[in-house]
Amino acid sequence: MNNHQRDLTLYNAHFIDGLSKAGVESVVVSPGSRSTPMALLLAEHPDIEMYVQIDERSAAFFALGLAKASGKPVALLCTSGTAAANYLPAVAEAKISRVPLLVLTSDRPHELREVGAPQSIDQNQLYGTHVKWFVEMSPPESDEKLLNYARRTASRAVYISKQAPAGPVHMNFPFREPLLPDYDGLFERLDFEETPAVQLTIGSRVLSKNETEAWAKTLKDKEKGLIICGEHQSEGLERAVVDLAERLGYPLLADPLSGLRCNQFSSELVLDSYDAFLRSPSIKHQAAFDVVLRFGAMPVSKALTQYVSAHAASIHAVIDSGGGWRDPAGVATHMIAADERQFCEALVKALPERKETTPWARKWMQANQAAQSQMKSVDEYEELDEGKMFYEVLKRLPDQSSLFVGNSMPIRDLDSFFFKDERSIRLLGNRGANGIDGLVSSALGAAAASSRLYLIIGDLSLFHDLNGLLAAKLNGLSMTVIVMNNNGGGIFSYLPQSNEPKHFEKLFGTPADLDFAHAAKLYGAEYERVTDLASLERGMSRAAETDGLFIMEAVTDRTESVTAHRELWKKVSQEIEKLTAGDDFWK
Amino acid sequence: MNNHQRDLTLYNAHFIDGLSKAGVESVVVSPGSRSTPMALLLAEHPDIEMYVQIDERSAAFFALGLAKASGKPVALLCTSGTAAANYLPAVAEAKISRVPLLVLTSDRPHELREVGAPQSIDQNQLYGTHVKWFVEMSPPESDEKLLNYARRTASRAVYISKQAPAGPVHMNFPFREPLLPDYDGLFERLDFEETPAVQLTIGSRVLSKNETEAWAKTLKDKEKGLIICGEHQSEGLERAVVDLAERLGYPLLADPLSGLRCNQFSSELVLDSYDAFLRSPSIKHQAAFDVVLRFGAMPVSKALTQYVSAHAASIHAVIDSGGGWRDPAGVATHMIAADERQFCEALVKALPERKETTPWARKWMQANQAAQSQMKSVDEYEELDEGKMFYEVLKRLPDQSSLFVGNSMPIRDLDSFFFKDERSIRLLGNRGANGIDGLVSSALGAAAASSRLYLIIGDLSLFHDLNGLLAAKLNGLSMTVIVMNNNGGGIFSYLPQSNEPKHFEKLFGTPADLDFAHAAKLYGAEYERVTDLASLERGMSRAAETDGLFIMEAVTDRTESVTAHRELWKKVSQEIEKLTAGDDFWK
Repeated sequence: MNNHQRDLTLYNAHFIDGLSKAGVESVVVSPGSRSTPMALLLAEHPDIEMYVQIDERSAAFFALGLAKASGKPVALLCTSGTAAANYLPAVAEAKISRVPLLVLTSDRPHELREVGAPQSIDQNQLYGTHVKWFVEMSPPESDEKLLNYARRTASRAVYISKQAPAGPVHMNFPFREPLLPDYDGLFERLDFEETPAVQLTIGSRVLSKNETEAWAKTLKDKEKGLIICGEHQSEGLERAVVDLAERLGYPLLADPLSGLRCNQFSSELVLDSYDAFLRSPSIKHQAAFDVVLRFGAMPVSKALTQYVSAHAASIHAVIDSGGGWRDPAGVATHMIAADERQFCEALVKALPERKETTPWARKWMQANQAAQSQMKSVDEYEELDEGKMFYEVLKRLPDQSSLFVGNSMPIRDLDSFFFKDERSIRLLGNRGANGIDGLVSSALGAAAASSRLYLIIGDLSLFHDLNGLLAAKLNGLSMTVIVMNNNGGGIFSYLPQSNEPKHFEKLFGTPADLDFAHAAKLYGAEYERVTDLASLERGMSRAAETDGLFIMEAVTDRTESVTAHRELWKKVSQEIEKLTAGDDFWK
Repeated sequence: MNNHQRDLTLYNAHFIDGLSKAGVESVVVSPGSRSTPMALLLAEHPDIEMYVQIDERSAAFFALGLAKASGKPVALLCTSGTAAANYLPAVAEAKISRVPLLVLTSDRPHELREVGAPQSIDQNQLYGTHVKWFVEMSPPESDEKLLNYARRTASRAVYISKQAPAGPVHMNFPFREPLLPDYDGLFERLDFEETPAVQLTIGSRVLSKNETEAWAKTLKDKEKGLIICGEHQSEGLERAVVDLAERLGYPLLADPLSGLRCNQFSSELVLDSYDAFLRSPSIKHQAAFDVVLRFGAMPVSKALTQYVSAHAASIHAVIDSGGGWRDPAGVATHMIAADERQFCEALVKALPERKETTPWARKWMQANQAAQSQMKSVDEYEELDEGKMFYEVLKRLPDQSSLFVGNSMPIRDLDSFFFKDERSIRLLGNRGANGIDGLVSSALGAAAASSRLYLIIGDLSLFHDLNGLLAAKLNGLSMTVIVMNNNGGGIFSYLPQSNEPKHFEKLFGTPADLDFAHAAKLYGAEYERVTDLASLERGMSRAAETDGLFIMEAVTDRTESVTAHRELWKKVSQEIEKLTAGDDFWK
């Protein structure tokens, strides 16, 4: 090794081993020249698993999905220039959805910046406020001081990315040519110590005993309370928040991504059809509450948001370990920066036991029951509109599988049709910025760390990240993609502009006329077109047996789906109006 | 109209009409909800042409290509959230390649920012240093003061985007619900004046008479000079720089994207095979020069960069109307911020006429001739390696057509095999950041403003922006895509790591095994697989007759292509060594 190669090799090796010892187990690499030293050494490290995706936008979403499903920080590596710019959508999503990513971008060295050199853009602060930390790394050197710096900065980046709220960190590495490190067998030769240079411990935010007791005192006599739980990163929160609901006697409105609709956390207080019954004016306007305790991200249900905005609660508390300001409706009265699980557990201990269900909770359970029986009437439908299709797919998901859902309509249909049942199914989505981008890759990244994974997605969203499918082939992964192909943007049919035919199809409907059978062939996927229950049944059976990619394309109709959804909601409303008729129900 | 709708409608209408009056003729829109008021009014404006692309990354590159080919600023519109983040790669490319774009992003209003509302990311300064100007627009109001502001800010944005160096401007628009404007027939009702609110005039930077005369005096007796011309935005520079070369007797090394290899600017001094002969050591080390005058972006030829770096010139002047610092080799001695064409024209006037070719220039012409005759020997090759394929395609391009070339290998093959000839062919590429991303869309955007357009691109690059193909169908555009499918990253085979088989295919070769016949079917394109001269001939004939998309897939081999290229360069070197044998040639 000459001096240059020694600097390049040792500096990067120390950095990479530092990442590994700090807990990074996976990296997603996109091919490039400038990133050669890092890429070869990452490939060589014995404890780092490497995934490859050529499109950097998809690569970053893949890393996001993998980090989300594994609960561990994932590294990303790309070459210099616009390659790095392609990471921004996933980086922005990771920041908001609190997913730890280590974004490693290679860069031209200082003398080749802003002088018209090829593949060089300004990478300093490239992701702006969308990362938790940006660090411009030193050019490689191999004296002890710099190797220590490389190793420690790796630890520090992991440390920052994992602290609540978790999120992405960006490290920019200038590399001079020649770019080839002396990689072969390097980590055996270097024989790094087992312990990391810096050991990382991250404590939790907890309330004092007095603060907890004050909350218990405040809440214990308030009957009309609600607990709302969205997607969260608090391990073990599900059990704790159900216990709290039972102790307080509060209905627990559980977003599908909360993990609470799984049978193992079952309690009569866990409600799963509130999106349907909160559309009904009699509940929306009459069911006034005193207390809301909210955990995790805002649920997807717009009806719920409108309902909580329609009443002034004496207490609307947002409990968030990340100390975020999650209050889109502008109704919060208390912000509590505390670990969600520990908050619930401490409060349960401080509260008296509760013997029986309160009248308030019983009414909510009745409404949920009434709404749900109507929603489940799709079981008898013969027409396969989008909602029915969704329902039938959900019914057939195997126990212990994972389901990733797209944004726009799929997450809303999931909210409508995923009811509590016996199976344990992991539900995942990208609900940070709710983009329709990157969903194929996010799901495939999650598939790399999950049980058998299904993705339900609309046609525009599948088109947007079609490139994501390549990662299945390149990395030997399996996934079933169920595309609801309504030939365009289905959600716009629910918005006011759908009543204005002028420009509608061009600007909003945007029919792309894509037959995904060709996409299946392009990416070596098995394929089934679903047009009726028999083909849906066949598709789901094949999916359970297929290794690699499997695409099920369900061709649906935007207009019919809107009509069917609206009819169903109307039936729910009628049922709720019947149930709550008379002035006394909510008294 | 209620007050809210009046604000929304009039404010956006004044802004949009302001854009139109300031010279914006086209907009590329991606569907979304938050952007509804702007989208509907843009669709309604009589003088704005609207293109639609669902994938925002592709949409932005489409706008870039359209702006580049038309020479006019193009607007972009998307919804809030990660949609806007998808623009970054094209925005970064536009900044460096100096293309005027008006990036209009719609945003949640202030009360819905950073509070967990859906589809909301921090869009302030989203593109950082990669735009020339960022403006956070006011929420819509319709009093005279705000309408004046909307109208004038539109003019101002166009003004900034067009000033040299041209580039992208970002305007962020917060919109509150409801989002529907009163659009139908609005511009007829409003009946705006024909003249814009502010009339825009942008002067040129020119040298004083004394400065020009000083340059003429300095240069007129220096024989050993070179002029180098890359891609540029200076209208009419081609004629002016050829005149200057003839006046000075300097060889003019013309990058393919300079526009100088077209016959209409023909001069014996315009050299087009320097990339081949500058690889030869005898020229690289012996042909010492005194003067370099450089115009436009750095040429693609690495051999040229290495050659100019190997000698200390007494003058290495970079003439740039944008006042940029284009000096990747770190060899410039003079930076001249001046309009390139006017600089050349003024200098020609100040210089004496030249009667005959200098010995220095004659040697360069001889070397060019010797190299080119070898390069043209591929004409007789029987094997269709990538270089030969490229050569045969170029030979068959119709007069008056346009050619967009991909980065990585295609631009290098273009440099090697596009010789000056009778035809007038417009050559285009994305040489700002030289990414392999967004090329399909950039080419299709250019196709919307060009004569019949051909795109030559590698398989990884086509994969990266495969979504770009959808815009052909959505907007009724025609283009021929010629994909050199060598199943992976061909350029890596020319780099040192190609000698190290460990990890090579996984990290650099990345064979994706894509058969683009399926992609053609997915996007409704005509398709021809090219395996020999007969199918190439057939493909090129079909291309000339096809409306809509046409894909020609040439299956090549990475290893064979490297070997063939190297053999060809070796033959050139041998020829050059023969020509320059003896000590006296460069004396």
